[in-house]
Amino acid sequence: MKRGSKVVVIGGGTGIFSVLSGLKNYPLEITAIVSMADDGGSTGILREEFGILPPGDVRRALVALSFEEELLCRLFNYRFERGDLKGHNFGNIFITALCKIFNDDFEKAIEATGKILNIKGKVIPVTLDKARLCARLENGKVIVGETNIDIPKHNPELKIKKVFLRPKCKINPRAKKAILDADFIVIGPGDLYTSIIPNLLVEGVPEVIKKSKARKVYICNLMTKYGETNGFGAIDFVNEIENYLGKNILDFVILNKKRPPEKILKKYGKKKVFFVEYRKEDFKDKRFKIIKENLLRRGELIRHDSKKIAKLIFNLIKS
Amino acid sequence: MKRGSKVVVIGGGTGIFSVLSGLKNYPLEITAIVSMADDGGSTGILREEFGILPPGDVRRALVALSFEEELLCRLFNYRFERGDLKGHNFGNIFITALCKIFNDDFEKAIEATGKILNIKGKVIPVTLDKARLCARLENGKVIVGETNIDIPKHNPELKIKKVFLRPKCKINPRAKKAILDADFIVIGPGDLYTSIIPNLLVEGVPEVIKKSKARKVYICNLMTKYGETNGFGAIDFVNEIENYLGKNILDFVILNKKRPPEKILKKYGKKKVFFVEYRKEDFKDKRFKIIKENLLRRGELIRHDSKKIAKLIFNLIKS
Repeated sequence: MKRGSKVVVIGGGTGIFSVLSGLKNYPLEITAIVSMADDGGSTGILREEFGILPPGDVRRALVALSFEEELLCRLFNYRFERGDLKGHNFGNIFITALCKIFNDDFEKAIEATGKILNIKGKVIPVTLDKARLCARLENGKVIVGETNIDIPKHNPELKIKKVFLRPKCKINPRAKKAILDADFIVIGPGDLYTSIIPNLLVEGVPEVIKKSKARKVYICNLMTKYGETNGFGAIDFVNEIENYLGKNILDFVILNKKRPPEKILKKYGKKKVFFVEYRKEDFKDKRFKIIKENLLRRGELIRHDSKKIAKLIFNLIKS
Repeated sequence: MKRGSKVVVIGGGTGIFSVLSGLKNYPLEITAIVSMADDGGSTGILREEFGILPPGDVRRALVALSFEEELLCRLFNYRFERGDLKGHNFGNIFITALCKIFNDDFEKAIEATGKILNIKGKVIPVTLDKARLCARLENGKVIVGETNIDIPKHNPELKIKKVFLRPKCKINPRAKKAILDADFIVIGPGDLYTSIIPNLLVEGVPEVIKKSKARKVYICNLMTKYGETNGFGAIDFVNEIENYLGKNILDFVILNKKRPPEKILKKYGKKKVFFVEYRKEDFKDKRFKIIKENLLRRGELIRHDSKKIAKLIFNLIKS
């Protein structure tokens, strides 16, 4: 690999998928650093019962980077619908079994899964410590557990004032090394408080990102999320990232400039999910460069187009 | 492949493992035909809940034929010890998920698993019909379910008079073709009533074996099984096979001539499991050729040595 080609993508959830699955087709050395805060659904049960780190975000990143045939990827994302296995995701079960075979060495399990899935690059948990994500709401109440924030049991109209990990977690040394060695760091897109910021809450992560000579980009979400980022404009996303990461660290912010069709926005609006608006004047004090492009994927679901986003990032890296 | 190299191995359970894992190293075209009677443990639950054919015997045959690294095989045989997944075997879960992805096409799931495991040869279910194995005991009582016969809930001193499938099952057309095309057919070793004979109970199987021009060998078990073959000598195993298969069909019977050390036999004896004895005079009316060799694997467990058995079969095929 040539110098200038080491990319670290920091995220979690489904947001990271579009970035990784697009970038893997470029001549880059990719490292995905994923959040370890997930505790819902299949992941939550396996985490609880087997005492392992949460496999869900790792699984999504591995599948995104896979060059295996479609079948294996479908299998990894398959969710059982009946009996004992109901709700469990096959890929999570796969990683759990490997983790147990390797005497609870989660990273060995990820590496072995990566080999079987024939992935390009690496997937690294941001921390190897176990913690719960907590959120303090504007009314002072503390919500414990990523899934309780993600699929809110509290009044979704209440703003999240702050998120934190309990207990505190230290950065995984391999994540630290990857960030320090990186030429380019991509943060996001993804659920702000439940997928992206949980990485920045890990002790050492903001410091190491700051220290790294890599150029840094934040990719802003396309839509708000009810109960998490109600009423957020682009500036609110960026301000929250800078709140946890530090100011004047980002070199670029990537925004989508194409508004989805009104018909589709109306459907989303019924679920209180809205288009993330950009106002030029909000950004007048910011030092980073703003890149605005049409990043929408075609179709009924409002998603980042993985090809568009990868091309844009690749061009930035080479610029 | 040269003519004379098509081998069909008929069995189930763990017995088939030693034959297949040895034979795969020879230049042979191997087809494993496996019993579909298993209904215990993980297999039983998945069969019940997902309405699929039982994956357990298929899994064992696939792993035996695999040329994948040891890790994937360990993973396939891994059994979960906790929570929702407790008692479930990873390989069974794997086959079940694939079966569901393929809209309940069990054979497609086997084929895809075989590719992932990089197997040599094919694994074919003896039937695609769903049935339960039943056993009539000497007191007239009928036991329903393979696992209830295998791990007896009845008085294990009672003899099994007859086994049968309910409802009746027809031979899988692919199993029929493999048997008719075979140059050599290996039956056993394995639990007589719960792994081997269930194949012969499928309508069409004995007829097709008889019709096939292949030479046929039965590999007798090393030890009796309490509750299934109490007090059986070699002649009793062979007579029961001929009872279900038909007389004068076998060309060879392979017997072990090496007695395990008395210390080990004593341990087995405490569990009412005894060495299968051979008496020459029992076989005086039989037309097949008897081959007696030392077939024991080293170690504390009395098992067939896969290398010895494979070499013996290969030499027979080439003779």
